[in-house]
Amino acid sequence: MNRRPVWIQNIGELATLKASQPGPKKGAEMSNLGLIENGSLWIEKGRIEAVGTTVQLKQAYAARIEEADVIDAGGGLVTPGLVDPHTHFVYGGSREEEFEKRLQGFTYMEIMNAGGGIHSTAEKTAAASFNGLYNEARVRLDLFLRHGVTTIEGKSGYGPNLETELKQLRVMQALNEKHPIDIISTFMGAHAVPKSYAGQEERYVETVINEMIPAVMEEGLAEFIDVFCEKDVFSIEQSRRILMAGKAAGLLPKIHADEIVATGGAELAAEIGAVSAEHLLKTGPAGIKAMAEAGVIACLLPATALFLGEEPADARRMIDLGVAVAISTDCNPGSSPTVSMPLVMNLACLMMKMTPAETLTAATYNAACAISREDSIGSLEEGKQADFVLWNVRSYRELQYRFGVNHVHSVWKRGELLVNGFNQ
Amino acid sequence: MNRRPVWIQNIGELATLKASQPGPKKGAEMSNLGLIENGSLWIEKGRIEAVGTTVQLKQAYAARIEEADVIDAGGGLVTPGLVDPHTHFVYGGSREEEFEKRLQGFTYMEIMNAGGGIHSTAEKTAAASFNGLYNEARVRLDLFLRHGVTTIEGKSGYGPNLETELKQLRVMQALNEKHPIDIISTFMGAHAVPKSYAGQEERYVETVINEMIPAVMEEGLAEFIDVFCEKDVFSIEQSRRILMAGKAAGLLPKIHADEIVATGGAELAAEIGAVSAEHLLKTGPAGIKAMAEAGVIACLLPATALFLGEEPADARRMIDLGVAVAISTDCNPGSSPTVSMPLVMNLACLMMKMTPAETLTAATYNAACAISREDSIGSLEEGKQADFVLWNVRSYRELQYRFGVNHVHSVWKRGELLVNGFNQ
Repeated sequence: MNRRPVWIQNIGELATLKASQPGPKKGAEMSNLGLIENGSLWIEKGRIEAVGTTVQLKQAYAARIEEADVIDAGGGLVTPGLVDPHTHFVYGGSREEEFEKRLQGFTYMEIMNAGGGIHSTAEKTAAASFNGLYNEARVRLDLFLRHGVTTIEGKSGYGPNLETELKQLRVMQALNEKHPIDIISTFMGAHAVPKSYAGQEERYVETVINEMIPAVMEEGLAEFIDVFCEKDVFSIEQSRRILMAGKAAGLLPKIHADEIVATGGAELAAEIGAVSAEHLLKTGPAGIKAMAEAGVIACLLPATALFLGEEPADARRMIDLGVAVAISTDCNPGSSPTVSMPLVMNLACLMMKMTPAETLTAATYNAACAISREDSIGSLEEGKQADFVLWNVRSYRELQYRFGVNHVHSVWKRGELLVNGFNQ
Repeated sequence: MNRRPVWIQNIGELATLKASQPGPKKGAEMSNLGLIENGSLWIEKGRIEAVGTTVQLKQAYAARIEEADVIDAGGGLVTPGLVDPHTHFVYGGSREEEFEKRLQGFTYMEIMNAGGGIHSTAEKTAAASFNGLYNEARVRLDLFLRHGVTTIEGKSGYGPNLETELKQLRVMQALNEKHPIDIISTFMGAHAVPKSYAGQEERYVETVINEMIPAVMEEGLAEFIDVFCEKDVFSIEQSRRILMAGKAAGLLPKIHADEIVATGGAELAAEIGAVSAEHLLKTGPAGIKAMAEAGVIACLLPATALFLGEEPADARRMIDLGVAVAISTDCNPGSSPTVSMPLVMNLACLMMKMTPAETLTAATYNAACAISREDSIGSLEEGKQADFVLWNVRSYRELQYRFGVNHVHSVWKRGELLVNGFNQ
């Protein structure tokens, strides 16, 4: 950790994301970026000690500037470090040949029969060694960091068995200790019914509840629990049981809801008090209203919609009805093999008609809320972790307007300069 | 220029793009990437002297390896340098506030009345100094290069008057001399009817034909001519006159066709023997067949469709009917403010269902054909310019599968290493 103070001055546009009240930003509040022109940050021991204009901080710290590392932001945009609140970034294998086959016109069943689909990832993840999984995931985290991400959520769920589930979670635990990106772990044993349980879905639900959750808790390997609630995967009733069991064990609930068919997943999220509901491509007005009333965050994944050729979630309606929206890469080998939150922000604007301000909120403060970390990250305020990005653009608008480019200049995590664009 | 030979070895997958016959690749031929496993290139004085496997070239050049700069490609993918055959990269001003207004729900007319739209770019381009335009365009070219582009087409067309048209073209001429990217210039006086000619469209067509084309030719400022053939812009008849006048003066015709309304632009392209027709979002089967028969290249712009929220062109049908397809960024401040051909390739797959192989052909060899440069660039063959990219992936499939990331590792132009990923 950097023991010298760091003084960042001459920030053309400092988007603090400071909230006017506790909890995720909803509706019009999503457009409030807490902008400071010609802004400045004073960092001490990895935390933000002061936020203001360059002139204000220059006066306040006049006596101490000589002991600080002084950084000139050159008039660029500074935002909180991006938070990616929904990924499956620990997995074995790669599926680019399946991707090509799909574009060549092969059907999903033909691809499955040729060894593709989620079960192929499960098998490769099961077959991979701890070190193999660790090293591949580490490379992915390095790329996330270079794309501005300083905190990430990761799910298990490629285990056709308990052993593989625990291996995925242990890889995340080890990476959380070694890698500068903070990792929030989610147990998702109920991602698919393993081949070995075909036709015995109920027995698998019991395994998740009675064997897997206790084993995960015993090692302290997860903070959240998630379920793929979907037609022909896990029913509303099964999802409720699994999530309530997780909640009883001390895990915070999330839910993959209404991605392919509207089964009432959004309503279930509201009923059980889930922190967030994910995907939501098919959620109707009743589900949206239930989420708004219960304060469930909508975690939307436009890159997945692009990759699968689906209509994206109705972000506009959700925001207009008072739901707090977060966005995420959904990084995974089957439906969103990307690590780029900058692209996801662009797609939030272009595919979901979110404004540049709403989009930045969704990728920082609301994303932090979706992993229950809004007390320490997601905005640039006194006392919070000094996780932030300097961008090669001058405004939050330009960040979305000049689309398709990773505009990251430099990235700081806990006040440490980890991606350094100053020497280029 | 590098006087020492350069030997690139250990290329995991070398996509030569070598064509089996002259002219652009059509239909199934677009999937022929001329792949060499464990490939190698021998470069001499900026040109490719030999292409083969590492083993073959190691034997052939055994006596000369000591005098060469030896580069180990580390098993990565090497492709020809990307060619961007349709841009408007020289312009004044920026329109991110208009972008935000559009997402906030303001109408096109409200934005126009608030000073947005193409006329605002024309006014800012007219007001900009030569040096101002030059410097902004140079920064853009640097970004294009870092995204793998080694040759680019650029159009005039933001001039409400001859003076500004010539200024844009002179900026491109000067950049072509100073910047490593090769620039192919297109005169596009008929991009919009200037405000000063409102209601006098015919008079403006005469000005383009009788004043502008001769002035452009006198200074030798362009090689192509282009027209925005569209309902309420330039009619089929006006477009034909302008393009035929350009052709008579020695310019090669291109045409913006059927972008908003199907007016018969594709058929006109076939009739007059245009090298390429651009956009083509609304072109029907008759237009596609006419293009196929006449050998007109379809230059498709999926990033523009994404930015404007339009359905992209029907690339699948065009390829299936035997049209050669190229792709491009359409880089411009109003409808596609991106410089990323890697993203455009991703979008060709995801939005237009082109396969990864067709996409790479469209961004290299066919794009070179669209600017009549296939004799010197667009494929890696003996005698051609040594313009190529080493990517941080191992296959052409992975390049599209891992979407949303600029996978460029290093870029060579005429055998010179210009983007250097070896020291990172």
